[in-house]
Amino acid sequence: MPVLVVGSIALDTIQTPFGRAENVLGGSATYFSLAAGLLDRVRLVGVVGEDFPDGYRQVFAKRGVDTAGLLVAAGKTFRWAGAYRGAMNEAETLAVELNVFGTFRPQVPEAYADSQYVFLANGSPSVQLAVRRQLPSAELVVCDTMNFWIQNSREELARLLGEVDGLVLNDQEARMFAGSDGLVECGRRVLDMGPRFVVIKKGEHGSLLIAAEGVCALPAYPTADVKDPTGAGDSFAGGMMGRIAATGDASYAGLKRAIGYGTAVASLTVEGFGTAGLESADRQDVEARYQSLREMLRF
Amino acid sequence: MPVLVVGSIALDTIQTPFGRAENVLGGSATYFSLAAGLLDRVRLVGVVGEDFPDGYRQVFAKRGVDTAGLLVAAGKTFRWAGAYRGAMNEAETLAVELNVFGTFRPQVPEAYADSQYVFLANGSPSVQLAVRRQLPSAELVVCDTMNFWIQNSREELARLLGEVDGLVLNDQEARMFAGSDGLVECGRRVLDMGPRFVVIKKGEHGSLLIAAEGVCALPAYPTADVKDPTGAGDSFAGGMMGRIAATGDASYAGLKRAIGYGTAVASLTVEGFGTAGLESADRQDVEARYQSLREMLRF
Repeated sequence: MPVLVVGSIALDTIQTPFGRAENVLGGSATYFSLAAGLLDRVRLVGVVGEDFPDGYRQVFAKRGVDTAGLLVAAGKTFRWAGAYRGAMNEAETLAVELNVFGTFRPQVPEAYADSQYVFLANGSPSVQLAVRRQLPSAELVVCDTMNFWIQNSREELARLLGEVDGLVLNDQEARMFAGSDGLVECGRRVLDMGPRFVVIKKGEHGSLLIAAEGVCALPAYPTADVKDPTGAGDSFAGGMMGRIAATGDASYAGLKRAIGYGTAVASLTVEGFGTAGLESADRQDVEARYQSLREMLRF
Repeated sequence: MPVLVVGSIALDTIQTPFGRAENVLGGSATYFSLAAGLLDRVRLVGVVGEDFPDGYRQVFAKRGVDTAGLLVAAGKTFRWAGAYRGAMNEAETLAVELNVFGTFRPQVPEAYADSQYVFLANGSPSVQLAVRRQLPSAELVVCDTMNFWIQNSREELARLLGEVDGLVLNDQEARMFAGSDGLVECGRRVLDMGPRFVVIKKGEHGSLLIAAEGVCALPAYPTADVKDPTGAGDSFAGGMMGRIAATGDASYAGLKRAIGYGTAVASLTVEGFGTAGLESADRQDVEARYQSLREMLRF
């Protein structure tokens, strides 16, 4: 079953200790699509400006991502500039230009109305909720969020959480939102607000799945070759949702395997600059990395 | 085979968001002994002052720790005071009184000369090296260290690393010592200095084993009930060494299992204040926690 993703498509300017790249393909929906597209078909709903290079459109095509929901609006594409230093655990945002993304009100195309697996990438919770309500019969809807919305749209976010199945967010955001220092406790507080599961992303430290059925901590894959962490979290979500869509298995055991796939795909992403690592990976690379992760954790 | 540990025995004053305790039993060799003692026999070499309470000596006796190597010196026992705040990832040291530990030059008793498994807990590298040389035929010698020695005794530490089999240290210390932001790279640089393996402890984020045979990242056990992280790292080392001593298996696969035991024991430690969690645990609790960890990581 295809995965539907709604989120940002951006032109990123990235600086890490390993290099610098200007106006490269980025955005949450981009990383998610290229990641999920390694495991299943992807339907992309997003917006770009008239300046969006045709070559970047080809990147989606090459992965088989369905871009019928990719709107071209008058104006410029969303731009983000960020830098990573030292251990590269956190991006320092240097500039954000929302451009056409700032006024984007996503419409799910008629052809996508039967989508069963939906990912609402980071964005305004009221916009995320409006999209969610366009897909009333979806099997599994998962959303992401970030500190800006937690601080400024807490009520809308709480309403959204009452209507989704899963939430993915990072550890700082989880603490900010749930108001506890303990991440397991944070996850449980989110569960009380509606979702069936929460995944807390901890960057190089891995992830934590919290559900009624249990708690599972997984490490990140210990790659020695991290070039650029941009998009790791969205790639993780893409690998996770791609696996769930491909198997239809969102049981607790299925979620654990899905998070294993998310971990595998994210590790391929960070080994390249921008989307390069994801673009050059194929299905076999993902399987090999997943099996290597499973093997590492078997003792 | 028994494990020999050389390290500090302290009276700790600890403050966490969950409480405060004064002059409770602490120190690296204490946590190590009580942890390793859950899995095998332990021989303790250390020093206390004349003020050391007899009740604390009973704690070792109750776990079956051999304290024939525990010296009572004229003066006061080593004291440490620390506080943990928020997510309790790092102790803030409020006071240190080395007292009798400051001039301690450990002598391995004749009866311990046949020890095959040795842990040199954090201490001056030149003192650690002197102990190591008292046990020339030991099968496996592992040492710990800390930022103070990395900054002030780098050469002695390098010499020590040329004569031990394994090094255990935390992530900040690994970065400080090896001069890389990437922990896998840090581990590899340490391997070049002599040890067969390095274990980097990441607190609530788990641990990383780096050896010629491979790299293994394990998460911490996701307990929701962290009361006091004091001694978690030494308990981890104790669980690890106790398992190796009990099985004689220090192969790469054996090290992975040993680190699983370290992870299990450390999680029992942090669930209690001071040594309470460790003291109330028994062998079955460790096995149950270890199996629960293995099960969590199976997908």
